[in-house]
Amino acid sequence: MPNINSNYLKLKAGYLFPEIARRVNAFAAKNPDAKIIKLGIGDVTEPLPEACRIAMIKAVDDQGKHATFHGYGPEQGYSWLREAIAEHDFKARGCNIAADEIFVSDGSKCDTGNILDIFGDDNVIAVTDPVYPVYVDTNVMCGHTGEADGTGEYSGLVYLRATAENNFTPELPDQKVDLIYLCYPNNPTGAVASKEYLERWVDYANRNGSIILFDAAYEAFITDDSLPHSIYEIEGARKCAIEFRSFSKNAGFTGTRCGFTVVPKDLMGTAPNGDNIEIYKLWNRRHCTKFNGASYIIQRGAAAVYTEAGQEQVRGLVDFYMENARLIREGLTAQGLSCYGGVNAPYVWIKTPNGLSSWEFFDKLLSEAHVVGTPGSGFGKSGEGYFRLSAFNSRINVEQAIERVSAKVAV
Amino acid sequence: MPNINSNYLKLKAGYLFPEIARRVNAFAAKNPDAKIIKLGIGDVTEPLPEACRIAMIKAVDDQGKHATFHGYGPEQGYSWLREAIAEHDFKARGCNIAADEIFVSDGSKCDTGNILDIFGDDNVIAVTDPVYPVYVDTNVMCGHTGEADGTGEYSGLVYLRATAENNFTPELPDQKVDLIYLCYPNNPTGAVASKEYLERWVDYANRNGSIILFDAAYEAFITDDSLPHSIYEIEGARKCAIEFRSFSKNAGFTGTRCGFTVVPKDLMGTAPNGDNIEIYKLWNRRHCTKFNGASYIIQRGAAAVYTEAGQEQVRGLVDFYMENARLIREGLTAQGLSCYGGVNAPYVWIKTPNGLSSWEFFDKLLSEAHVVGTPGSGFGKSGEGYFRLSAFNSRINVEQAIERVSAKVAV
Repeated sequence: MPNINSNYLKLKAGYLFPEIARRVNAFAAKNPDAKIIKLGIGDVTEPLPEACRIAMIKAVDDQGKHATFHGYGPEQGYSWLREAIAEHDFKARGCNIAADEIFVSDGSKCDTGNILDIFGDDNVIAVTDPVYPVYVDTNVMCGHTGEADGTGEYSGLVYLRATAENNFTPELPDQKVDLIYLCYPNNPTGAVASKEYLERWVDYANRNGSIILFDAAYEAFITDDSLPHSIYEIEGARKCAIEFRSFSKNAGFTGTRCGFTVVPKDLMGTAPNGDNIEIYKLWNRRHCTKFNGASYIIQRGAAAVYTEAGQEQVRGLVDFYMENARLIREGLTAQGLSCYGGVNAPYVWIKTPNGLSSWEFFDKLLSEAHVVGTPGSGFGKSGEGYFRLSAFNSRINVEQAIERVSAKVAV
Repeated sequence: MPNINSNYLKLKAGYLFPEIARRVNAFAAKNPDAKIIKLGIGDVTEPLPEACRIAMIKAVDDQGKHATFHGYGPEQGYSWLREAIAEHDFKARGCNIAADEIFVSDGSKCDTGNILDIFGDDNVIAVTDPVYPVYVDTNVMCGHTGEADGTGEYSGLVYLRATAENNFTPELPDQKVDLIYLCYPNNPTGAVASKEYLERWVDYANRNGSIILFDAAYEAFITDDSLPHSIYEIEGARKCAIEFRSFSKNAGFTGTRCGFTVVPKDLMGTAPNGDNIEIYKLWNRRHCTKFNGASYIIQRGAAAVYTEAGQEQVRGLVDFYMENARLIREGLTAQGLSCYGGVNAPYVWIKTPNGLSSWEFFDKLLSEAHVVGTPGSGFGKSGEGYFRLSAFNSRINVEQAIERVSAKVAV
């Protein structure tokens, strides 16, 4: 039989969200009348913006006529979408990003995993703790780590601790690392990165020849004008950062699927013989060889995000979810809980009361309040004693959830 | 700077289709009045089936209402699509494939590349020659080969020669190989695999503990009832084969994007300690960690392929392209050219006349007939002296192309 990629055997069997689903299903089976409210997975609930729907219906019609039929498109995405992105998401914020440095894909989860394809196996890789599990698991899967220890941490990775003491913005590593995953506004903590904080990272990366893998999936939720939406707002970032973006959370594309990755042409890596190699060319080659472009129909929907109507409708969605976040944060703070995030991010990161573990608090909220959140420990050991509530739900459900949780957790 | 994946440096710079585009653009610039007809890339030209468009417009509408909005779906695809596939593509042909063995994706190119993620780096890998370049390039990119030689072949791969002498169905390897890529109906040769031929492969694979990576992207073009559409029509294939399928060529989804991969639960690989590991679980883990499901809208379109109207419309498309193929094959055969394929496959594989090389014939047809095809040598060294014409174009273009080529190549 063929040999398997045995790195997969290092992955822990009980991935976070399936375990949550298992406990929720078990509870629901025993309590069929309980009206469970889910504020767990960061999945949107509001309908797609009308501008996107109109554009997609037109695109479906295009596919019905010879003159406007679209077969294989450019693997990197259509220029009308890449140019709209460059203009609105970057140039409008003073970032010098060209349309041809933007690679459209079917979503950011794929991109953050696939990016490792183009790097060597001997880089030192840093992740924050807590962290979006995909960054870690994809490194495990391609052999960049050893085994997990008892706390679930893998040897070979550098973990940067994000705690209340450092406002969930970890210190720079005290060693040289080659690749660093950063996500701001942060999943799961809801923390944000100031311009000064990102400047320190860009400076570190340029001094150490590191590349920052910057996940900006939640940038649309920033309401504070002083905060950067893109790492390219920081001078020097073109030389040290790849940025991942998504239409999932701003325009509600979690089930519709579109994202993009920015790879500036200034970015270089090292070949074994010491030559400098453009990262751009490697990613372009990967994209063209292992991907066939995002759907024409979906790209039309994404492009509509940048129309006047689309921008207004996206703002409406963001405002809606951010009002949910405010209600959760203020409602639970009023009960004496310590809440972080939820201001420029759709996640509220709650310190569990009375020394409860993350999973104990999960079980308590599920059984007593019929509310589902995400145990912080599922994102890493520094998440132990924390709990994530997401702002993605209807207003009525959010209000009920706050009421029910408040009745059970008053401290 | 981070180390790059230096395997990428082994890839040849001049990939086939960009080189074709370069020559076509240079010719068009010098001959602005030439009406160039492209029968090169295997891209469809006919509008999407109406059933698919109606389903997608309804799905876009679903995304506009709370009650029918779809956020993240199952990474493996919606059960209504997986069940329709299992029923129509497999059970109806006597193949014992369950819905949960089907993994829906955004296209077959991704899947045929990504499948290598779950295998180890020390397998012996066989490809046919000529071959779809993605199979080779993705192996190069993940380090399964050495450098290319002067003919473009990579050390470390086992090449199985497909020639006119063996009807473009290579002999079994005379050594043990672990992974074997087979594509039938074949791209680029248009050859088909009989039941007996696939039985020999399944027998070989089960005797040697190999896994066949079977690309059935062109199965819809089979008109001969005796030919298998799926490798699972062969007894024992559940223990030795993964099958890739696509909606690109049957339903015209090249720009709409949907495909799927079948991984039977009987399929096993070997861990370093000798344990047998289910390939299904590894692929499921990869799919869930590095992919977030195909678009809900597009999956609705794909599911409509299996409705009565969809089936009829897909048959109409296939019949249309196959009539093109017949015209090309018979038209050029009448001029004395040796033509293969084009009967149960949308590609006609032509022996170049007068000992011309593949690229010489390409240049001749481009400059004299203003017709673009694909040089056979671009698919591997056994493709030298051959030329691929695709049946994907309008009837009028196909007829004109045949007329023009005929006038220039009569032998």
